Amino acid sequence: MPGNTIGKMFRVTTFGSSHGKALGAVIDGCPAGLELSEKDIQKELDKRRPGISKITTPRKEPDKVEILSGVFNGKTDGTPIAALVYNKDVDSSAYEKLKNKPRPGHGDYGWIKRYGHYDYRGGGRGSGRVTIGHVIGGAVAKKLLKTVNIEVFAHVIQVGNIKAGKIDYSKRKERFKNSVRCIDKNTAKKMEELILKVKKEGNSIGGIVELVILGVPPGVGDPVFSKLDADLAHAIMGIGSVKGVEIGMGFEVARHMGSEVNDEFYLDKNKIKTVTNNSGGILGGISNGMPIILRMAVKPTPSISIPQKTVDLEKMEETKIKIEGRHDPCICPRIVPVAEASAAIVIADHLIRSGIIHPCNIKASGGI
Amino acid sequence: MPGNTIGKMFRVTTFGSSHGKALGAVIDGCPAGLELSEKDIQKELDKRRPGISKITTPRKEPDKVEILSGVFNGKTDGTPIAALVYNKDVDSSAYEKLKNKPRPGHGDYGWIKRYGHYDYRGGGRGSGRVTIGHVIGGAVAKKLLKTVNIEVFAHVIQVGNIKAGKIDYSKRKERFKNSVRCIDKNTAKKMEELILKVKKEGNSIGGIVELVILGVPPGVGDPVFSKLDADLAHAIMGIGSVKGVEIGMGFEVARHMGSEVNDEFYLDKNKIKTVTNNSGGILGGISNGMPIILRMAVKPTPSISIPQKTVDLEKMEETKIKIEGRHDPCICPRIVPVAEASAAIVIADHLIRSGIIHPCNIKASGGI
Amino acid sequence: MPGNTIGKMFRVTTFGSSHGKALGAVIDGCPAGLELSEKDIQKELDKRRPGISKITTPRKEPDKVEILSGVFNGKTDGTPIAALVYNKDVDSSAYEKLKNKPRPGHGDYGWIKRYGHYDYRGGGRGSGRVTIGHVIGGAVAKKLLKTVNIEVFAHVIQVGNIKAGKIDYSKRKERFKNSVRCIDKNTAKKMEELILKVKKEGNSIGGIVELVILGVPPGVGDPVFSKLDADLAHAIMGIGSVKGVEIGMGFEVARHMGSEVNDEFYLDKNKIKTVTNNSGGILGGISNGMPIILRMAVKPTPSISIPQKTVDLEKMEETKIKIEGRHDPCICPRIVPVAEASAAIVIADHLIRSGIIHPCNIKASGGI
Amino acid sequence: MPGNTIGKMFRVTTFGSSHGKALGAVIDGCPAGLELSEKDIQKELDKRRPGISKITTPRKEPDKVEILSGVFNGKTDGTPIAALVYNKDVDSSAYEKLKNKPRPGHGDYGWIKRYGHYDYRGGGRGSGRVTIGHVIGGAVAKKLLKTVNIEVFAHVIQVGNIKAGKIDYSKRKERFKNSVRCIDKNTAKKMEELILKVKKEGNSIGGIVELVILGVPPGVGDPVFSKLDADLAHAIMGIGSVKGVEIGMGFEVARHMGSEVNDEFYLDKNKIKTVTNNSGGILGGISNGMPIILRMAVKPTPSISIPQKTVDLEKMEETKIKIEGRHDPCICPRIVPVAEASAAIVIADHLIRSGIIHPCNIKASGGI
Repeated sequence: MPGNTIGKMFRVTTFGSSHGKALGAVIDGCPAGLELSEKDIQKELDKRRPGISKITTPRKEPDKVEILSGVFNGKTDGTPIAALVYNKDVDSSAYEKLKNKPRPGHGDYGWIKRYGHYDYRGGGRGSGRVTIGHVIGGAVAKKLLKTVNIEVFAHVIQVGNIKAGKIDYSKRKERFKNSVRCIDKNTAKKMEELILKVKKEGNSIGGIVELVILGVPPGVGDPVFSKLDADLAHAIMGIGSVKGVEIGMGFEVARHMGSEVNDEFYLDKNKIKTVTNNSGGILGGISNGMPIILRMAVKPTPSISIPQKTVDLEKMEETKIKIEGRHDPCICPRIVPVAEASAAIVIADHLIRSGIIHPCNIKASGGI
Repeated sequence: MPGNTIGKMFRVTTFGSSHGKALGAVIDGCPAGLELSEKDIQKELDKRRPGISKITTPRKEPDKVEILSGVFNGKTDGTPIAALVYNKDVDSSAYEKLKNKPRPGHGDYGWIKRYGHYDYRGGGRGSGRVTIGHVIGGAVAKKLLKTVNIEVFAHVIQVGNIKAGKIDYSKRKERFKNSVRCIDKNTAKKMEELILKVKKEGNSIGGIVELVILGVPPGVGDPVFSKLDADLAHAIMGIGSVKGVEIGMGFEVARHMGSEVNDEFYLDKNKIKTVTNNSGGILGGISNGMPIILRMAVKPTPSISIPQKTVDLEKMEETKIKIEGRHDPCICPRIVPVAEASAAIVIADHLIRSGIIHPCNIKASGGI
Repeated sequence: MPGNTIGKMFRVTTFGSSHGKALGAVIDGCPAGLELSEKDIQKELDKRRPGISKITTPRKEPDKVEILSGVFNGKTDGTPIAALVYNKDVDSSAYEKLKNKPRPGHGDYGWIKRYGHYDYRGGGRGSGRVTIGHVIGGAVAKKLLKTVNIEVFAHVIQVGNIKAGKIDYSKRKERFKNSVRCIDKNTAKKMEELILKVKKEGNSIGGIVELVILGVPPGVGDPVFSKLDADLAHAIMGIGSVKGVEIGMGFEVARHMGSEVNDEFYLDKNKIKTVTNNSGGILGGISNGMPIILRMAVKPTPSISIPQKTVDLEKMEETKIKIEGRHDPCICPRIVPVAEASAAIVIADHLIRSGIIHPCNIKASGGI
Repeated sequence: MPGNTIGKMFRVTTFGSSHGKALGAVIDGCPAGLELSEKDIQKELDKRRPGISKITTPRKEPDKVEILSGVFNGKTDGTPIAALVYNKDVDSSAYEKLKNKPRPGHGDYGWIKRYGHYDYRGGGRGSGRVTIGHVIGGAVAKKLLKTVNIEVFAHVIQVGNIKAGKIDYSKRKERFKNSVRCIDKNTAKKMEELILKVKKEGNSIGGIVELVILGVPPGVGDPVFSKLDADLAHAIMGIGSVKGVEIGMGFEVARHMGSEVNDEFYLDKNKIKTVTNNSGGILGGISNGMPIILRMAVKPTPSISIPQKTVDLEKMEETKIKIEGRHDPCICPRIVPVAEASAAIVIADHLIRSGIIHPCNIKASGGI
């Protein structure tokens, strides 16, 4: 079944694979009147581009975006926005010998079983490069959210056993000043060292990325099967390498009592707020006006150069593979822009569904 | 936006609220030829019914299901299956005084902001009773999955700080022999004691429920936006009180290296398996044939009888409330059937989408 | 695949069959705050009820509607509205002998081939009685449209060769003063005579129903695959017995030149209108503010008591059947409320999609 | 709301406008293993290309298609197929003076009211050029249908008052031997003469296109809201210029009796067929195995060079416009490939939904 579209009122359909001709997205449902240029999208793509630091893959992918439709005289016109990136620097040779040997930790085996005919080069559509489509969609969503003062940002809070302490969100722009996308620069340095060490061993390491959404008004979310937390969990769990998602207090709730977890309400200058934010901004599937906080567990990149056991599916016999090529020893920094994009799409979608952003024309946006 | 439908090929639409006339579901897309009776659904509803042990709410809800359509001569006929439960034992008086005072930890505030006009009695559609609809849909899904030898089960593995050790899944039926739905009876006893202690204090306690799905063949899942893990996370995170979802090794991946997390492939009598199952049966969003393992963090029931601060939205002044009424001190045991139902719906939907279960007629079911 | 839901933002899911336990609908996406009672729905159901005149089937179906959810203190509360009608006066005996013999002009054969297991009693879900679900959904949609001054009405303009002349729409309430639902009473009388004559012969007769929608503002419709005319055509062609749909000048356009068909624009007190309305209120798939005019061709009821050839599917041999039972000799009058309901659902859906009716709360409805 | 996607299991999302950078489509849900090349798509695009005869617009649009993704080693691989055509020969100057003056018979006025910000050049996304996306999607659908021996074809049967007599479908390839796409060459000649005469007058003329689908097995269609005839009517009515759709006997049913319209069943070498085909191959919304026959009314091209009244929306005063530029005096011949494409998409979608074509892998296609 077609699975390459996300969103209902703000819909993003993506296409393309690692070693194909191009990757891109079609965004349908963006209201007219939004200022949008290739620069807006390029800025976001540059955040996910590899080859930008010593801890990411040395592949050089310029990833220049081209808008094909949906923008007229510098503004969206309500018609589908198609944008793409042509693939360059494609080297498929390394994959030829992995052809019928599913790589441990990768989706290869499932793809082969599902479709029979499978583009094995660079993971095909299972590659991390497909997140170019996510980021294109998210760039438009972010622009749209800005019109209602909503900001989505993600940052790395853990790599291996190195954890960031309490984070001052007001310093969030700091995360782009280091290669690991950690807001705290001292922690960032330790994370970098760990990643480089692991890289030298031909291994990889996991981590945790936190996502914060500021400015969502109370009343957003569609119970009972399209709750805001459910839709966010869906988008985030759908990012390759993510194996867990938690909101607010998350898994910690298991060890606590109701009196410790419940967030009491109070009045802050006639505005309703909660004393704590253990709910992470979402209660009963609907936003409550507090910051939305979500954390995701990111597994270590499965591509490692240490030999691993697998099965040759053609000969049906056990064998070993060693994955060469250029890979990120820790994927967390590159999950950051993808998580932001994915969440931005969900929030933009829900704001239109909630009547906060007008479906046709941003100038008409009202509120609940 | 309408949010009360889940699934694409196997679609469940639910309706009803805590203190309304009835609750139910319409299941559209169940293939014809499946044997189905009210008994099949009642059996599942009985698992979620309160008033069945000393640790659950003493409300008496017979919750007798009635099938209205879609079954002819004992078999589904391909048309929508509507089934409902009429509400009995409804006592709304306790809620009258909570009318404009959102309960901490509950969704009230969001519902009020979203819809203006809000059924505050018993949480309205935000109540746990709406999961009757989930369970009706899940009962049909479970019956359907049985035709292809797939079993979905959930069990409680943690309450507060009490954790079950390694679980022998072959003993899974044991979970219904105690009130906490824990497979290990010794742990169950300790959990029960903790829950009763917390109850006496007018408080509540959180926990962790594990979900296991056996028998899903490799090749199920629709990348990149309808991956199997993403859709499961969506369904599970959408259950009230769930604040976290993890698959396989889950959040533990953050602290590990690729060589520790990757599951190596081997041949077991010509069948491809993985040595470990850190992926929890899903890689790249597609099943790999191993058991699917998912855990969810369940927060303590927000309804506690300890006084809590809130805001009177009419008078716009701070106040305190004490929630009376009948509530579960630990909701984990009652999440069990709801988690099973939610997952069963997702799997049934994906099996039809994957061509493994035929969309019209179960006799024609083939495979990938 | 599930096909029992219509609409995207205003969604109606129906269930039930001719001789099953009940028929009904779940309406998801109706904004909160709309006054709604069983009386509102009953009024519409009464228009489609048989046994109300000498030209309709003498079956007695009280068809009392019951609202199960979604209405609180007399107003919708944003949650799904479930409503149903229990079947009474069910006599399945006449169908026993038609069991494996598809009736000419009916859908039986397709249903058998599609689902294998098929409820043959009274046409099962292929029966006209399933339009009870349409009418329930339409009743809610009509109530919603009234809040923005939109009215949907249908009337019979042709039966056999008897055609109504130019119709004065301001007299539209007259259509309920005769059994054929024709606005012009003289034509109505002739139509009635023809229908009674045909009935006496055990035969049936076709006709044409016109649908008019007043008050839709310009700017409604979602090109290129969810145009307003396309969605109306979809809803109307989906009504049993309809074999053609045309909008505005309809099939007549084939014989005309651009200069005759194009509607020129002019200013009427600062409001933009068109001199003619050959487009039927829709241009390029978007409303232009003129009345929406649509006509549908209704085939003669396929159930006739004249013997007809068919095939016994069990014995695989040719045979003859004579359809007994109680049937309408002309289905046009009963298509009227169903066409109104179907169109009202489409318009309500599009108004929410266009931001003219607010998705959560009718009080917040704005405009494009 | 996003309206640029058609289909549920076989989904086509299109983008692009008349004078933008490119037009194209993303096809999601095409099973893997289908042989597909740019040649397959180009062949269909060439049928809709203007500038190929004296009766079509003299614009020169090479319309070279480029496949960007979804095809690996000459076969589809189950991932989204993106394909596009870059716009060349774009001359926007003629539209500058029409900027705020909606053209009679065109969708301009609705687009302006809907989106505020509107690409007026060449009709923007309201242009006939957007059907390039339809044709790309349809080309893939046709290839897919061929694997189960289904053929979709359309042909012109009426232009003005000139009607083709009884058509011998076996000669259907003849329609490409003349510029009007009429199977009968003598009628074609008369049609051509009429079109040239009308063109000389700066006027345009309407017509009727017939669509035939051969090979659809019985049992395809999803009652009650996704019937096969309803979905076909939706797709066809959504084509610009179409103002009416009828199936089988169509509007003629209004004048006939049940005994004349009902198609009796008989056995033809153990295969069930109907004596007549007044139903046009669809009964109760489900195919019955007979050829599917549908006709559409096509209005005369609204772009005529005769002066017409309109309103200057900026000055809010009445004015006149004369549409210059290059236009087809009769759009019927160019509707032919678009109707074929639209219908092919609907049928491909329904065949997957019905389990006749496997959703993942064409080699696994089974049947109902």
